[in-house]
This record gives sequence, C-alpha cells and structure tokens, in this order.
Amino acid sequence: MATPYWTRPEPPYHVAIFTITPSGIDPEGYAEMNKRMVKLAEAQPGYLGRESAVLPNGSDLVVIYYADAESIRTWKRNSEHVVAQRLGRQKWLARYRVEVARVERAYEFAAGPSANAAPDAEGQTCGSASPGQD
Amino acid sequence: MATPYWTRPEPPYHVAIFTITPSGIDPEGYAEMNKRMVKLAEAQPGYLGRESAVLPNGSDLVVIYYADAESIRTWKRNSEHVVAQRLGRQKWLARYRVEVARVERAYEFAAGPSANAAPDAEGQTCGSASPGQD
Repeated sequence: MATPYWTRPEPPYHVAIFTITPSGIDPEGYAEMNKRMVKLAEAQPGYLGRESAVLPNGSDLVVIYYADAESIRTWKRNSEHVVAQRLGRQKWLARYRVEVARVERAYEFAAGPSANAAPDAEGQTCGSASPGQD
Repeated sequence: MATPYWTRPEPPYHVAIFTITPSGIDPEGYAEMNKRMVKLAEAQPGYLGRESAVLPNGSDLVVIYYADAESIRTWKRNSEHVVAQRLGRQKWLARYRVEVARVERAYEFAAGPSANAAPDAEGQTCGSASPGQD
C-alpha cells in the first residue's frame, strides 16, 4: 500500500534506512521474504510510509518511516522478522547496514495549483524539532 | 566518487533524505544540475557518503550522509546550491520533501571471509548514541 511521501507528518519522527547487498542465492526466496516483511512493516503500529529502490550497483535501498523509535524496536523484535533476519544472514544477504535515525527537520515544496498541497515558492519548513535552527 | 555504505562511521552522524518528483520540464537541465549538486555535496566538509536511486513511481530518492547537522546547514546555504534550489522550484521539480535526521544507531552484517568487514552471525551493532537501547 503506497503512502505518498508528502503525507508524512511534521517532525520529529523516526526512520530506518536499509542498504542491502543480496548474495544472489535464492533470489525468489529473497523476493518472497521481502514482500512478507513489507506487509509486516506496514502492519506495525506507528508506520508512516516507505520508499524502496534498487541502487545502480544492484544493492537495495529501503527507507521506512515510523512515528517513534519504540515502533522500530518493536518491529525489529517481531518474531517473524527475527526469523527473516536470521535466514537473510544465512543465505540471501551478502552485506547490509541498517541505520535508525530521528528526523529533526523537514522541508516541502509542491508546484502549481494541480498539486495536492499548497504551493510555496520558497520551500516550506514543515516542522522542526530544533527550534531556532534550520 | 563512490563511498561504500559499509565505510560509514559509528553513529551519531546526520543524514539528509531527498524525495523528489521531477516536473518533466527540461530533463537535460535537471540532470546537469543534479551532477553539479552531487559534486558540491561531496566537496562539502563533513561529507560521509551518498546513495541515489529512482523509485518505481519515477521520483528520485537521494540519501546524503554528513558528520553533523552543521555540515548540512552549510551545504544548504551554499550560494550555488541556493540558486539550484530556486531554479528547481521554478521549473525542474513538481514536488519534493527533504528530511534531515540524526542517525542514532547502526547495525551491520557482512557474510563470509571474502567480505571486507568481520562476519558476525548475529548482526553487529556498530554504534549507538543511546546506550542501553537497541
């Protein structure tokens, strides 16, 4: 289920960034596991959205947003997710790095009257967890 | 210049996440500006690395890492960058969202003896800015 990036709330919220290099072993199994993990991630309370793309070097870049750090911890410890992580290390994955970060500021822009949000010629600061800074 | 994701340091550090929907106007100019902005981003002190990919919906996802929030602020205010941002809003971009986040934790895994980092069957916590939490 797609959650458009412009519907994310004002900061603060959290993000988990996955950079994943598949091993090339059992790509069908890896794809199936990924589909299942996407459903798990979406079902986790606090889920705010997700972007996923294949990098030019063949690695996967997955960015998943949650309302708070506790949602990410709970999701990481989900029993089915833990099994998938173990299987991933055993066969599907050559290398990965997961980064958990707190979103402190966000800027948005939408052009023209056909866009869903109000246009703002200067780019709008839609939230800041560090008042007084930009 | 590629900076492999597994060479990033232990947290804390910062990341700027760009989700960008091009307008479709002047794609050559947009691509040229992007190339120039990548060079600027890399030249900015504190630069730690960058991943960039096209999302399935045609938007661009760009993740740029910096040692600290101040590096991102300085880069955002770079005069050439400011001009590019203005031109982007005027013609190249239909919509975007920029999120600035503080990376608090990172987990790494590398399989087998051929990988550059030590293997760790459980996935290694390579840094945490919140001791006692995972």
